[in-house]
Amino acid sequence: MKLVKNAAGRYVPTEVNGVKQIPFKGVGKYKPKGKKAAPPIKSCADYPDDGNKVVKNLKEALKKAGLKDGMTISTHHHFRNGDKVTNLLFDTIKSMGIKNIRWFPSASFPVHEPLIKYLEDGTIHHIEGSMNGALGRFASLGKMKGTGVLRSHGGRWQAIQDGEVHIDIAVIAAPTADPFGNATGDRGPAACGLLGFALADSIYADNVIVVTDNLVPFPCTPWQIQGNNVDFVVEVDSVGDPTKIVSGTTQVTKSPDRLLIAEYIAQFFEDAGIMQNGFSFQAGAGGINLAFAVYLRERMRRKGIKARFIRGGSTKYLVEMLEEGLTDYILDGQTFDLEGVRSMRENPNHINTSPFTSYNYHGKGNFASMIDAAVLGATEVDLNFNANVVTHSDGFLLHGIGGWQNALFGKTTILAIPSFRDRIPVIVDKVTTLVGPGELIDVIVTERGIAINPKRKDLLKAVKNSDLPIRPIKEIYDEVNSLCGGKPAKPKINKDEIIAVIKWVDGTVIDSVYKVEQ
Amino acid sequence: MKLVKNAAGRYVPTEVNGVKQIPFKGVGKYKPKGKKAAPPIKSCADYPDDGNKVVKNLKEALKKAGLKDGMTISTHHHFRNGDKVTNLLFDTIKSMGIKNIRWFPSASFPVHEPLIKYLEDGTIHHIEGSMNGALGRFASLGKMKGTGVLRSHGGRWQAIQDGEVHIDIAVIAAPTADPFGNATGDRGPAACGLLGFALADSIYADNVIVVTDNLVPFPCTPWQIQGNNVDFVVEVDSVGDPTKIVSGTTQVTKSPDRLLIAEYIAQFFEDAGIMQNGFSFQAGAGGINLAFAVYLRERMRRKGIKARFIRGGSTKYLVEMLEEGLTDYILDGQTFDLEGVRSMRENPNHINTSPFTSYNYHGKGNFASMIDAAVLGATEVDLNFNANVVTHSDGFLLHGIGGWQNALFGKTTILAIPSFRDRIPVIVDKVTTLVGPGELIDVIVTERGIAINPKRKDLLKAVKNSDLPIRPIKEIYDEVNSLCGGKPAKPKINKDEIIAVIKWVDGTVIDSVYKVEQ
Repeated sequence: MKLVKNAAGRYVPTEVNGVKQIPFKGVGKYKPKGKKAAPPIKSCADYPDDGNKVVKNLKEALKKAGLKDGMTISTHHHFRNGDKVTNLLFDTIKSMGIKNIRWFPSASFPVHEPLIKYLEDGTIHHIEGSMNGALGRFASLGKMKGTGVLRSHGGRWQAIQDGEVHIDIAVIAAPTADPFGNATGDRGPAACGLLGFALADSIYADNVIVVTDNLVPFPCTPWQIQGNNVDFVVEVDSVGDPTKIVSGTTQVTKSPDRLLIAEYIAQFFEDAGIMQNGFSFQAGAGGINLAFAVYLRERMRRKGIKARFIRGGSTKYLVEMLEEGLTDYILDGQTFDLEGVRSMRENPNHINTSPFTSYNYHGKGNFASMIDAAVLGATEVDLNFNANVVTHSDGFLLHGIGGWQNALFGKTTILAIPSFRDRIPVIVDKVTTLVGPGELIDVIVTERGIAINPKRKDLLKAVKNSDLPIRPIKEIYDEVNSLCGGKPAKPKINKDEIIAVIKWVDGTVIDSVYKVEQ
Repeated sequence: MKLVKNAAGRYVPTEVNGVKQIPFKGVGKYKPKGKKAAPPIKSCADYPDDGNKVVKNLKEALKKAGLKDGMTISTHHHFRNGDKVTNLLFDTIKSMGIKNIRWFPSASFPVHEPLIKYLEDGTIHHIEGSMNGALGRFASLGKMKGTGVLRSHGGRWQAIQDGEVHIDIAVIAAPTADPFGNATGDRGPAACGLLGFALADSIYADNVIVVTDNLVPFPCTPWQIQGNNVDFVVEVDSVGDPTKIVSGTTQVTKSPDRLLIAEYIAQFFEDAGIMQNGFSFQAGAGGINLAFAVYLRERMRRKGIKARFIRGGSTKYLVEMLEEGLTDYILDGQTFDLEGVRSMRENPNHINTSPFTSYNYHGKGNFASMIDAAVLGATEVDLNFNANVVTHSDGFLLHGIGGWQNALFGKTTILAIPSFRDRIPVIVDKVTTLVGPGELIDVIVTERGIAINPKRKDLLKAVKNSDLPIRPIKEIYDEVNSLCGGKPAKPKINKDEIIAVIKWVDGTVIDSVYKVEQ
């Protein structure tokens, strides 16, 4: 495997799974050429006039779709840990004796641990997509045949759109669908809100199979997935376990340290002048983020401030803000709880987005760069504000990128991080894996203080008179290292064996992930 | 110009405007190959981070879009006869000294008559799209430099999607838009309902310019046109004249003959068993169609029958049916009156469709073939049920195809036609221009009787005991000819000069339109 040093100083392979790679060239530096991928032209003459595309089961659909060894099959992760379709899919593929599938999920979850046996027996050759938990551990130990490729949500759209990843068969689990293949996530026994992560798959894949446990008469609306892109529809007993897809209640953190971080961020929004009429922000569904939303809401009420839009992952806290009139819109990429699902279904100002609208870097702009402030997390940050979200300091690949890289393009990017986890400092000399370049990260908020990227002189000036604990990052770093008894131990990794690569939003390779030796 | 006889027995050119053509091969016989058209890959690095794509005027936008001689420029017709943007567009192009534009509208209207001067002075080379009224007359007299190409709404999507027509610059007039280019037709001073006819243009054109008179802060929702496909946004004083875009009230016919036709059709729906719970139908906004909808509504109420969906062109009559619970959905391709606009904006079951969902024949099915019955019009029908909607019996090309060819794929196609117009019989030996093959046309309803295509034995059987005046088509033909004093005069056309071709839904050429000699 030939390695080159990329613009971030990281060594990355020039070829991955037989495909030539472009090393990261710097933010905004790589200019794509050529045309988008183009699916085959079809004819209505080859589809049923009555619009009924239902076939008897998944095996039948896969057969009709021409499943063969070595194909690329995609799935989405809107069911999160409640997904029942992907395991069924690979059980079916195994039963058909098919080998060497490239699995291209929008993300994987602990529920997919049973697929390890198919990685072992050659049914699945490798995974391109996030590998959370057990699958990540499996890959980290060098056990996966191919090399993992991790992309952001926007990077996944970009890779499909640009023809970097050609999907042979997309399998789209849908909470509700009609026999024509129109599908929605906002209703049905396994309602998950929306299906945006499967949208690119439905548009660009050669063959599209919709799997549902709630078949309704045509038309299924809203058609988040359009039947005009669908080849076959399959009915199953259950596509997902609702209790694991969304939780009825999302939990605000109870940790005093994390609550403090949340309060610091809310105050930062106010003191730095981000919180003003017509502003926008993005915050996820982690415990700190939820607490932040609650605190910010208080401040907005107090000052009579209204946002123009909030970017979700939506939760009941954001829904309450919408219903209370504290924001005109929620622009939502995934719903994290039942209130999010209900609001998306009922409220025309709770808008269903996709990685195309929000994150695709190879488009004519996207929403991410328009957002005033994004509050995100990280597993590690270094003294130059570079950040990691995929590996831990022990080298294990345990998380996906999600929309994290994409959201970094917001006007102000704030990382909310406890200064240490399990007595391991989070601010480090050099991140184990580079996922986000420091030039895009503006503020680090820990319970011990707030570090502002020296590049952001405007922000430093804006909070000059604030009583927030603004401190140089090095100072926080030193304090935490002394508190934890030193820097994190070096990970035991084998620099000669790359188990996965991390793509930047433009399809270039920003870093490599190495095998962990045990 | 080399001509060949196609599968319908019509002579068609093998090349049009320098582009090779495929002659019509029969319904469902031509199988497309290859891949869809693919627009160039772009990068967010080349678009403003703040999402503001507003440029100072149309000229600036056209310059930035790289306007050059010979380019293809597209517009949509949702503003119908109230369109103010297209004339402004070509005034601007003229002022820039640009020549030989191929104008690719989704339709043209009498309001575009001033463009004749640009057809004369070489600013516009030729029109591909419907040419209603004055433009049609101009072309019919052989005055247009290139050859017209008429496509159905679905055929236009197919042509763009298949790469048959490459749009260099799409100019999309929008009743409401934001600086990012998100645009909607359902609100604003010039609200027209939806923008579905411009959707393909926005997806496939190299450059997309949105023109609006109602710029709102991001996000403009619903984003019927997605800003992620838009390059530039231009503000103008007014995009359209609301009184000519939609009429406040749509007029039901008052002609006793036409009311009788409408009543016959409504009774036919009931007697033939089409009107049953869960059925669907399509009817346009002509006077007969409106009356038909009113009569059918009465019968549905009386029998307690509910439709699953109605395909619009929506009018207040369809909206009333939706609101009264006589249908679950309106699936709407264009709104014909203000009530249609209001309903689309407010009612989640009044659904915005596009030629992609409804009509594109080179897709994985479309909605048209799922519809139980479509009620359409025609300028001429022949004894074999072949029909014409574009020329009159005098040979003049005065109408576009609209969605007519596409709607023929409904399970039962009914043509509502007065048996004569201006004392000229409508049932003829052979249609002046073949637009729809008789095999797709099932029923002709005139005020003198109803003719059922002998192919539809099932329909003949279904209405055996009906008191409807079911008659052989030849009998009605003979009666009308004798009433009108004979067959229509032969058109004075020059068979050596083709002024336009008619495309079938699959991109093949079904007929030629000839120069009219005066």
